[in-house]
Amino acid sequence: MAVGNFKIAELFPVRGVQLAALASGIKNSGDKDVVLIELEQGTHVAAAFTQNLFCAAPVQISKKHLQAQKLIRYLLINSGNANAGTGVEGEHAAQQCVAQIAQDKNCDPEQILVFSTGVIGQVLPQEKVVATLPNLYSSLSVENWQAAAEGIMTTDTYAKAVSKQVTIDGKTVSITGMAKGVGMVKPNMATVLAYVATDAQVPPILLQQMLSECLEASINSVTVDGDTSTNDSCVLMATGQSNCLIDGSSESDFQVFQQALQSVFLELAHQLVKDGEGATKFVEVRVSGGDKQASCKQIAYKIAESPLVKTALFASDANWGRILAAVGNAGVNLDVSKIDIYLGDVQIVAQGGVAPTYTEEAGSAVMQQEEILIHVNLNAGNAMSTVWTTDLSYDYVKINAEYRT
Amino acid sequence: MAVGNFKIAELFPVRGVQLAALASGIKNSGDKDVVLIELEQGTHVAAAFTQNLFCAAPVQISKKHLQAQKLIRYLLINSGNANAGTGVEGEHAAQQCVAQIAQDKNCDPEQILVFSTGVIGQVLPQEKVVATLPNLYSSLSVENWQAAAEGIMTTDTYAKAVSKQVTIDGKTVSITGMAKGVGMVKPNMATVLAYVATDAQVPPILLQQMLSECLEASINSVTVDGDTSTNDSCVLMATGQSNCLIDGSSESDFQVFQQALQSVFLELAHQLVKDGEGATKFVEVRVSGGDKQASCKQIAYKIAESPLVKTALFASDANWGRILAAVGNAGVNLDVSKIDIYLGDVQIVAQGGVAPTYTEEAGSAVMQQEEILIHVNLNAGNAMSTVWTTDLSYDYVKINAEYRT
Repeated sequence: MAVGNFKIAELFPVRGVQLAALASGIKNSGDKDVVLIELEQGTHVAAAFTQNLFCAAPVQISKKHLQAQKLIRYLLINSGNANAGTGVEGEHAAQQCVAQIAQDKNCDPEQILVFSTGVIGQVLPQEKVVATLPNLYSSLSVENWQAAAEGIMTTDTYAKAVSKQVTIDGKTVSITGMAKGVGMVKPNMATVLAYVATDAQVPPILLQQMLSECLEASINSVTVDGDTSTNDSCVLMATGQSNCLIDGSSESDFQVFQQALQSVFLELAHQLVKDGEGATKFVEVRVSGGDKQASCKQIAYKIAESPLVKTALFASDANWGRILAAVGNAGVNLDVSKIDIYLGDVQIVAQGGVAPTYTEEAGSAVMQQEEILIHVNLNAGNAMSTVWTTDLSYDYVKINAEYRT
Repeated sequence: MAVGNFKIAELFPVRGVQLAALASGIKNSGDKDVVLIELEQGTHVAAAFTQNLFCAAPVQISKKHLQAQKLIRYLLINSGNANAGTGVEGEHAAQQCVAQIAQDKNCDPEQILVFSTGVIGQVLPQEKVVATLPNLYSSLSVENWQAAAEGIMTTDTYAKAVSKQVTIDGKTVSITGMAKGVGMVKPNMATVLAYVATDAQVPPILLQQMLSECLEASINSVTVDGDTSTNDSCVLMATGQSNCLIDGSSESDFQVFQQALQSVFLELAHQLVKDGEGATKFVEVRVSGGDKQASCKQIAYKIAESPLVKTALFASDANWGRILAAVGNAGVNLDVSKIDIYLGDVQIVAQGGVAPTYTEEAGSAVMQQEEILIHVNLNAGNAMSTVWTTDLSYDYVKINAEYRT
């Protein structure tokens, strides 16, 4: 199940980024499960990883390689197996894949990043991955974004990717990204897996800064079930092949580029939520009028993660009392008598009590919609925060109860 | 659905406590929905209430009345309507009930406490309650604990009550308690509704202290869905009618009494969890070896409230990677390489990785059971904490999606 009928629009190739996606046999289904990305010499890479302390072997390796500050040339991603909680054995399996690519391509192991997603607690069958490498090398193409987006899927019901082109200083700059979810989704510094590439030229420090800014208001503001994965990783790659330099020296160029980049991240984030496990609704929770942005986000998350709010959304039941209870339960000091709450355009709570104009019919009409806005105005300041989430359906339980069977 | 086949054992009357439970028509089903408790002159009362900022009208009134420090004579409880988020109108409705009892019984309004549980956001139909008062007065009896336990139910599938007798200084002391759940259950200072009475004589300050201690390790250590209600209230009443004084002057008397009281609270807490909405499993999450009790509890709650752990429990799937991910995601600074995790007697994680002795068969065998222990040993100190919870089933979604239909 998913909200709406998502179709990937045209994906622009990014000069300097070649991709390949094949089936190595990790997934019993025979679907594509390994993706290789080759980056042109000189590409700058920024990355963010899960804050889960039990981060997976590939996350540990990729972090170490990035610290070495060499230019990254290859990203190897597998789906169907997270290689997390697998200790020394898991690390060894991931290292084997790295070593093989380094030997085949005559590069340093530290120029290679590895990523895994899937079942936790099983060691990566590295022999399957290694055996597929020669075919991956020969399949590399700038045209393979769609195939790669399919290759990183786990319980996703559709591949997630988005592309933008902007003209800066007379040059066409492409930004293309892909991501996968869709359970254990409460990204913290990065989402489950997301890769965005551009052919703009961006200095490393600025690239990392852009990634952090883009993440905060997009992928780090979504939640399906409040569980942060052991494997969350997000990579932003800038090949520089468009010969368009974004270094902050031109404020307007920077703005045009950053805006396009932000919209790529935001669309990927929304795609993640719309395909959230069992999702039948796409819900925006906006908390405004707070004294601090962090408090607004805390309240927004409390609403977005309340099982009672989520089941009411699933049932299209305008049970606004549950929203109110979640606000009161967010651990934020509030003057409840100032709070207004809106469901779409319908005011349900005024000054902390039921709005005099509210009718059950009006509330129900909003709840029937597939995309719903819950807006809480604290009327106590100018800070605000927005979080996106899904409902909690029978299918969420079904997908997660049957995940390993 | 509920875990096990619970039957209330013998409930001992508590001298000085009379109860009545009747149907006033708040519930469409025609089930009992109002309960009146009459306390003998001289009874001391301790109470704890929800920390939810949107606390309901009756909670606000009861808190105010307790602050007046008069001796409490009546408790009026209704189910089927929470009278929460109802503003001035809701407060007025509750006050009307209080005023009527005060007039009928010639007592001060501040000697009366009121409690409501049920749907949030609808004003209490006070006229139905007031019309039922005369019949409640004439039904008062020390024998009515079972009826009262039924009268406070909402989505509970069975009435919850427990009774203990201890002999102190040659005198028989009775402790009887009742409680109701079973959704929006993550009590914070008190549970949804719980009432425990004893005929021991206990000074007010000690009584409040005993209540706090008993709550912490029982009702404040359970969670069904992580949502804290607007109406949580817990009352401990000591009538003194047994002529047995517990004032701390005899350490051994105090111990015997406190132990019995603690066991009443613990059993009520377990009954709440076993009847948690949609529950098919009763799960104890124990985190030991921490440096602080609060950190242990934080980790225990993270496991207990993870939708992924809960759906795996529902499916009897030994997907221990989800437990590990929850531990790493609890926001507590840990050395993951020291952590051991057990499922019942089966060690699944040793020093942060899968235990060499672990087999999927052994893990699955534990997961098939109806009562399951998840034990995380942090091996970093002597603090520990235990939390009780349920699985997340289709029925949880069904109950909460259809609650108001």
